[in-house]
Amino acid sequence: MSLVTIIHFSGSGHTTKLADSLAHGAASVAGVRSQVLSISGDDIEKGRYKNDAILAHLDASDAIVFGSPTYMGGPAAQFKAFADATAGRWFASGWRDKLAAGFTVSGSPSGDKLNTLHYFFTLAMQHGMIWAGVPETPYNAEGVNRLGSNSGAMGQAGQEPTDVAPNAADKLTAERLGERIGRLALKLKA
Amino acid sequence: MSLVTIIHFSGSGHTTKLADSLAHGAASVAGVRSQVLSISGDDIEKGRYKNDAILAHLDASDAIVFGSPTYMGGPAAQFKAFADATAGRWFASGWRDKLAAGFTVSGSPSGDKLNTLHYFFTLAMQHGMIWAGVPETPYNAEGVNRLGSNSGAMGQAGQEPTDVAPNAADKLTAERLGERIGRLALKLKA
Amino acid sequence: MSLVTIIHFSGSGHTTKLADSLAHGAASVAGVRSQVLSISGDDIEKGRYKNDAILAHLDASDAIVFGSPTYMGGPAAQFKAFADATAGRWFASGWRDKLAAGFTVSGSPSGDKLNTLHYFFTLAMQHGMIWAGVPETPYNAEGVNRLGSNSGAMGQAGQEPTDVAPNAADKLTAERLGERIGRLALKLKA
Amino acid sequence: MSLVTIIHFSGSGHTTKLADSLAHGAASVAGVRSQVLSISGDDIEKGRYKNDAILAHLDASDAIVFGSPTYMGGPAAQFKAFADATAGRWFASGWRDKLAAGFTVSGSPSGDKLNTLHYFFTLAMQHGMIWAGVPETPYNAEGVNRLGSNSGAMGQAGQEPTDVAPNAADKLTAERLGERIGRLALKLKA
Repeated sequence: MSLVTIIHFSGSGHTTKLADSLAHGAASVAGVRSQVLSISGDDIEKGRYKNDAILAHLDASDAIVFGSPTYMGGPAAQFKAFADATAGRWFASGWRDKLAAGFTVSGSPSGDKLNTLHYFFTLAMQHGMIWAGVPETPYNAEGVNRLGSNSGAMGQAGQEPTDVAPNAADKLTAERLGERIGRLALKLKA
Repeated sequence: MSLVTIIHFSGSGHTTKLADSLAHGAASVAGVRSQVLSISGDDIEKGRYKNDAILAHLDASDAIVFGSPTYMGGPAAQFKAFADATAGRWFASGWRDKLAAGFTVSGSPSGDKLNTLHYFFTLAMQHGMIWAGVPETPYNAEGVNRLGSNSGAMGQAGQEPTDVAPNAADKLTAERLGERIGRLALKLKA
Repeated sequence: MSLVTIIHFSGSGHTTKLADSLAHGAASVAGVRSQVLSISGDDIEKGRYKNDAILAHLDASDAIVFGSPTYMGGPAAQFKAFADATAGRWFASGWRDKLAAGFTVSGSPSGDKLNTLHYFFTLAMQHGMIWAGVPETPYNAEGVNRLGSNSGAMGQAGQEPTDVAPNAADKLTAERLGERIGRLALKLKA
Repeated sequence: MSLVTIIHFSGSGHTTKLADSLAHGAASVAGVRSQVLSISGDDIEKGRYKNDAILAHLDASDAIVFGSPTYMGGPAAQFKAFADATAGRWFASGWRDKLAAGFTVSGSPSGDKLNTLHYFFTLAMQHGMIWAGVPETPYNAEGVNRLGSNSGAMGQAGQEPTDVAPNAADKLTAERLGERIGRLALKLKA
């Protein structure tokens, strides 16, 4: 059994939609369990994130998928507070060789989302994790990876309700990434 | 009088379309002259770019705008060969304090184009240049900056003819960047 | 008169050392005034930064220099909370055409510091600002830019006392960047 | 049996030193074979790389490690010409799920080397590969990862002879990365 955990911050619920799709995709792989965890502003005191239970869930996971909206060109401050709170795990090499992936949402098609994905990658590398992205080229009938992002999954959403955006193609992109992470997590655990 | 030079590589003509729009925008500023220069594969011998006339034109420019399609996640090799050939100017600080900007084209909306713009920025910083991007938010009637890119101008084009893609909005985005570079080049020269 | 403001977060005081050097360098330029502002965790509630006085000081500045330690491969969460709080200025294009620069500190020579500087650049581009970096090549007797960073100033400091690290060369690098920003701020205001 | 191939360009031999160390580390893992391949300027015609034999070797590899000096803030043009020539494999998803890693060398401690590693990562993601970096923190007696780079291996070398630079610590860093890639290649093949 492999455990894939999606840890994410969502400001208005759009990013949670992709988190759910990812979890659904991962759990569709036989032998894989998935869970979605949220970063809450209530756990941030003076800019520092404090929630040992969340970190313990991640310690117990085989794969960790990072998610956040792109705010002002990077991951939300709430996500970064979480990331800074993983310094103890970094120091102890606690997450070494775990699988990692990422996803992000913003209002425009490109919109510096790649910068957020590159940050997730950099964080994963500091932890000695192994990174897998979105292999699909954006030339398919279903619209999978329609925005053209390989480093991780991108979704687009502005002020629309969360049942409208991110759209079905973006959610399918996240679901496929979830399946891939599930398959690879099993393989790396073998 | 300020001189704005657009130096670019174009594989199929789409990137040249944005180069022309940029030059048009720059030349629309009173007191600014602009020119478009091309990087030709004929000037690359065994991976090394050799064309002193092009480099001399850039030496004489107040602003240099870098352009290339995004190939395999970065600037085209032909552009990189040109960039490597500027090492002599780098060593002599020959382009210090010149103004810089950049633009790129690829087939999908996001498509790692930000990585190409970040490379142009990194190159400009090595030369001690000053960087200006696209200030417009992508929420306007004309479609200026519709893809959502502030570090430089992005255009989208796949296999379409060059009179179709990049589209009018992308060309207007480049034109506006050209105007901005023209104005700033005058100011920095004063 | 031009005003250069250094806005920064510092966890242990090392980053403040570079902030002070930058301010000193900027104020050495005739016609330039400089000030150092700090981001305090006390102003962050549930991950959101709230300090209108700080933002008003930045509104009134001709140049804004961003500074933060590099934590877990990016700017400190406290800095990111500040950055997210500038969304109102972004929406109103309030900082368009201001000059921008950045600096960061971490324990190892390279250490993903470039990622933090690239984030500052991305933030500045979202605001439509103009970016200037460190033009010096790292081959000089004084050790200016000894780490080899052109996108912004880098300093190195681990657990050493703040009177030892960042060292004299790193502080001189920041001071020179301050002078440059001062000169350019005057020119852009003219 | 797993095959780890190091494909690299080297201008003055320093980067080849790290390639050799990586190959040595990979081959030290039971069940792993390694080879070092070079990108030659002789195979680049007008900026385009043409060597089908090299590409066929990579098709047959379980892991591909990318290496290049950092020239003007990014991979050498010769490496980029090679990268552009992999577009056919990209289109056919030929390298999907292969393991990937990277290394680079430049004259200063930081020196935009991270940008080159990020490019290698971006290239690998376009191919749907899986990325592994350097997990060691730079706080160890042997000097492994002394420069502080997790996304890939960094070495430092300027004009020194190749038996002096990159130094023993940098070569050991590359060797350890080779071992890791060997172990992971076996696991992913299982």
